[in-house]
Amino acid sequence: MPRVTTATLRQRLLAEGLGTALLLAVVIGSGIMGERLAAGNAAVALLANTLATVGGLYVLIEVFGPISGAHFNPAVSLVMAARGHLPWSRLGPYVAVQLAGALAGAWLAHAMFGLPILQLSTKVRTGTGQWIAEAVATCGLLLVILRASQARAAILVAAYIGAAYWFTASTSFANPAAAFGRMVSDTFAGIAPASVPGFVLAQLAGAALAVALHAALGHAGDGTSPQEAVGGGTGRSR
Amino acid sequence: MPRVTTATLRQRLLAEGLGTALLLAVVIGSGIMGERLAAGNAAVALLANTLATVGGLYVLIEVFGPISGAHFNPAVSLVMAARGHLPWSRLGPYVAVQLAGALAGAWLAHAMFGLPILQLSTKVRTGTGQWIAEAVATCGLLLVILRASQARAAILVAAYIGAAYWFTASTSFANPAAAFGRMVSDTFAGIAPASVPGFVLAQLAGAALAVALHAALGHAGDGTSPQEAVGGGTGRSR
Amino acid sequence: MPRVTTATLRQRLLAEGLGTALLLAVVIGSGIMGERLAAGNAAVALLANTLATVGGLYVLIEVFGPISGAHFNPAVSLVMAARGHLPWSRLGPYVAVQLAGALAGAWLAHAMFGLPILQLSTKVRTGTGQWIAEAVATCGLLLVILRASQARAAILVAAYIGAAYWFTASTSFANPAAAFGRMVSDTFAGIAPASVPGFVLAQLAGAALAVALHAALGHAGDGTSPQEAVGGGTGRSR
Amino acid sequence: MPRVTTATLRQRLLAEGLGTALLLAVVIGSGIMGERLAAGNAAVALLANTLATVGGLYVLIEVFGPISGAHFNPAVSLVMAARGHLPWSRLGPYVAVQLAGALAGAWLAHAMFGLPILQLSTKVRTGTGQWIAEAVATCGLLLVILRASQARAAILVAAYIGAAYWFTASTSFANPAAAFGRMVSDTFAGIAPASVPGFVLAQLAGAALAVALHAALGHAGDGTSPQEAVGGGTGRSR
Repeated sequence: MPRVTTATLRQRLLAEGLGTALLLAVVIGSGIMGERLAAGNAAVALLANTLATVGGLYVLIEVFGPISGAHFNPAVSLVMAARGHLPWSRLGPYVAVQLAGALAGAWLAHAMFGLPILQLSTKVRTGTGQWIAEAVATCGLLLVILRASQARAAILVAAYIGAAYWFTASTSFANPAAAFGRMVSDTFAGIAPASVPGFVLAQLAGAALAVALHAALGHAGDGTSPQEAVGGGTGRSR
Repeated sequence: MPRVTTATLRQRLLAEGLGTALLLAVVIGSGIMGERLAAGNAAVALLANTLATVGGLYVLIEVFGPISGAHFNPAVSLVMAARGHLPWSRLGPYVAVQLAGALAGAWLAHAMFGLPILQLSTKVRTGTGQWIAEAVATCGLLLVILRASQARAAILVAAYIGAAYWFTASTSFANPAAAFGRMVSDTFAGIAPASVPGFVLAQLAGAALAVALHAALGHAGDGTSPQEAVGGGTGRSR
Repeated sequence: MPRVTTATLRQRLLAEGLGTALLLAVVIGSGIMGERLAAGNAAVALLANTLATVGGLYVLIEVFGPISGAHFNPAVSLVMAARGHLPWSRLGPYVAVQLAGALAGAWLAHAMFGLPILQLSTKVRTGTGQWIAEAVATCGLLLVILRASQARAAILVAAYIGAAYWFTASTSFANPAAAFGRMVSDTFAGIAPASVPGFVLAQLAGAALAVALHAALGHAGDGTSPQEAVGGGTGRSR
Repeated sequence: MPRVTTATLRQRLLAEGLGTALLLAVVIGSGIMGERLAAGNAAVALLANTLATVGGLYVLIEVFGPISGAHFNPAVSLVMAARGHLPWSRLGPYVAVQLAGALAGAWLAHAMFGLPILQLSTKVRTGTGQWIAEAVATCGLLLVILRASQARAAILVAAYIGAAYWFTASTSFANPAAAFGRMVSDTFAGIAPASVPGFVLAQLAGAALAVALHAALGHAGDGTSPQEAVGGGTGRSR
C-alpha cells in the first residue's frame, strides 16, 4: 500500500522539478569530473559516473519520494497514470517540471564546472543496438518500479541503474527527461539532439513491454503488495 | 519460514527464464563494455563487470524471488530439490528454462553491442586451480543460500558473488547455466565449450560440499530459520 | 521522533571531537594513500578517496550518532541550534571540539603516513564555480539531514557525500570543520588557507538555502517524522 | 541483547576456523588477482582487494555470526573474554582455530591461483607510522564492534575495514590472525615474518585503547544495547 502523502500539488511539482534537476546535475557533473581526471581511461570515468549516479539516485528517491513519488521520469509518470496511480490531469504538469528541471540541472553542472552554460551535445548515439539497449534498460527499470517492495524501491532502482550503465550498450538513459537534459550538454554524458527521438521511442517501447511482462508475471502472493510509485508517493494530494 | 507464493508454474518458469536471461545479459554485456572502455587494464574491466553483476544480481533476486525463488542456477535448483523445497518434477523444467534463458541473455547482449549474435568462446579456462576455484565458489554460494536470513538473502548472495569474482582464480561462475550461456559468447566473460564440463563438475562437487558443511554447522538457534530459496519462493505453487 | 539519549555533555563533546578527528583522518589519509598508489591517475585516487569517505562516514554516524547526534560539522550544528534541536549554549562547545578534532585528525593522518605533522596546504580552490559547488553541496547535505528518515540517515548522508565528491566541482567539502582540517595538510585533500573563507561562506549560504527549501517542501504526511540530527541524538543531555 | 545460540563448541570452532580461512582466502586471493590484472597500478589492485574484502567480510559475519559470534580475530576474542562475553576457557580454542584457519586460507588461495603452497612473505612492513596505523585500525574496529547495534554489526564492520584499507598507512590488518596468515604468502597482501610481532603488539594496544574509549563514551540511552559480538553470538553454548 503506497504511503499516504499530504503534499500539495505545488510541493509535488517542486519536488519533481528539484529532484530531476539534481539528478541531471549528478549525471552530467560526475561525467565531467570523471572525464577530466581519468587521464583518457573511459572505463574509469564511467565507473565514477556510475557510483555518483547510484548514490545520488538513491538519496533523491528517499528524500523526494514521500512528497511526489520521485518519478523524475516522464515514462514512469505515464505508466503511473495509465495504472491509475497518478491522475491524468497531473501527467502534464509532472512532465513539464521534469523537463524544465532536467535543463536546469544541466546548466547547474555547467556553472559549477566553469563551462559555457548553453551548449548542445555533438555525441551521436544511434543504431539498432543502442535502441534495443534503451528499450531493455527502460523495461528493466519499470519492472523494478512495478514489482519492488516499497521499503527497498529506492535502493533497488539505484542498483539497477548502476548495473544498466554497464550492461546496456547505451549506458542506460532509460528516461526521456534525462535524454532531454543531456542533449544540452556537450560533455561526457551528452547526446546529440538528432539522437534523442530514437532514444525516447525506444524508452516508451521498453516501458510498454514492462507493463505487459508485469501482467504476465502476476502478483506474488507474499503479503507485500507491489510498489506503484518509486518513492512511495501516490501522486494524489488532499 | 519461506514466503508463501501463489505463482503458477507458468509464471515461475517465466520468472526463472527471464531472470537468468537478464543475469547473463548483465554478466556478458558489462564484460563487453568494460573491456571496450578500459584501455587494456583488465582489472578496471573486471571491476566494472563486478559492480554491474552485484547490482544486477541483487535486483533480479529481489524482483523475481517472490515468484520462483530466483534460483537462476541448476546447482541451486538441484540442492533445493534434494532438500525437499522444490518438487522433483519441477527440477527438469526449472533447469530447462535456466539454460534457455542463459542462451537468450548472451544473444541479447550481442544484439545490444552490435556483435554477431551467434558465437562460441575461445577462452580456455582449465586446470586444477580453476577447478578448485569453481568448487570453492559454488560451495560458498550454496552456504550463503542455505544459511542466510531470508530478509538479507538477495544482498548477501550479490555481495558474495562480487567478492568471489576476485578471490577465486576462475572469477566465480558458480553456476552451470552461467557457464552454458558464457560458452556462446567470444567476449570478456566467455568460456570455451571444452572447458565447460570441468567447470560444471567442479560446481556440483562444491554444491555437495556445501550441503555437508551446512549439516555439520547445525541450526543456529536464534529464531531466524535458515533460508532455503534465494529469493524466498518455495518452488511450490497452489 | 529523535532517539532520547542520556549522554553527558562531556561524553557528547568527546564523541563530536573524536568523530570529527576520525572523519578528517579518513578523508586526508585515504587521499594520501590514493595519490601515492594511483600512478598519476587522479580519478583512481579520487575513487579510493570517495569509497573510504563513504564507508568511514557511514560507520562514524552510526557509532557516534546515539551519543552526540554525529554532526561533525559546524554548519549542521548551527542549523540544529536554529531549529531548537541543539541548545544555543552548546553550539560554541560543539563547534570548538569539531575544529580541534579536525586538526587532530589531519595530524594523525600525517603521523600514520610518515609526513611532517605541521603543514599548510598550497592547493588553491577558488572562483565562482567552486563557490556554487560548495553551496550546492552543503544545501544537499542539509536537505538530506533535515528530511531523511532516522533509520536511514547515516547511509543516506554517506551516499550523498559519495555522489557529491564527483558531481560538484569542489569535490564537496560541505563542512567548515573539514575545510579547517584540510587547510593544515599539503596533500591530495588539502585547501590553501586563503581559499577557506570563500568555502565557508558558500557553505553557510547553502545551509540557509536548504532551510528555505525544506520549509517550501513541507512535511511529508507519511508517518515518519523528519530527522533533525544526523545520527538521531537530540543534543540535549539530562 | 545478544542472540541466544545453541551451537555446540565443536560447531563454534568449525565456524571460527572455516570463517577465518575464507576471510584469508578472500584477502590474499583478491590481492593476487588484483595485482595480476592491474597492469602495475597499485591503487586499482587495492581497490579490487578492498571491494572483495568488504563483500566477503559482510557475508562471512552474517553467515557465521549466529554460530560462533564470527570473531575471526584473536584481538576480538580477547576483548570478548575480558568483558565476560566469551568464557576464558574458550579463548584458547578460539584463537587456535583462528590461527589454523588463517594458514589454511592462505594455502587455499595459493592452490586456486596455481602458486607454490608453502611461501613466506618478503614484504617488510615496519616503522612508527605503520604501528600507529595498526593501533588506530584495531581501535576503530573494536569501537565499532563494541558500540554498533546488533542488526547492523556485519555491514558496519565490513564498511569500516573497507575505509581502513585506505585511510591507515598499513592498509589495516587489525587482526593478529590475519597477520599470521598473510605471513605465509609472498603476494600482494603479504607481510614479512619479522614485521608480524610489531603489528600484533600495535593491534593489542589499539584494542586496549578501544576498551578505554568505550567506557569513556558511556552507554547511549536509546534502547538499543551495545553489541558485544560481531555477529551476535554469545560465545556460550548450552
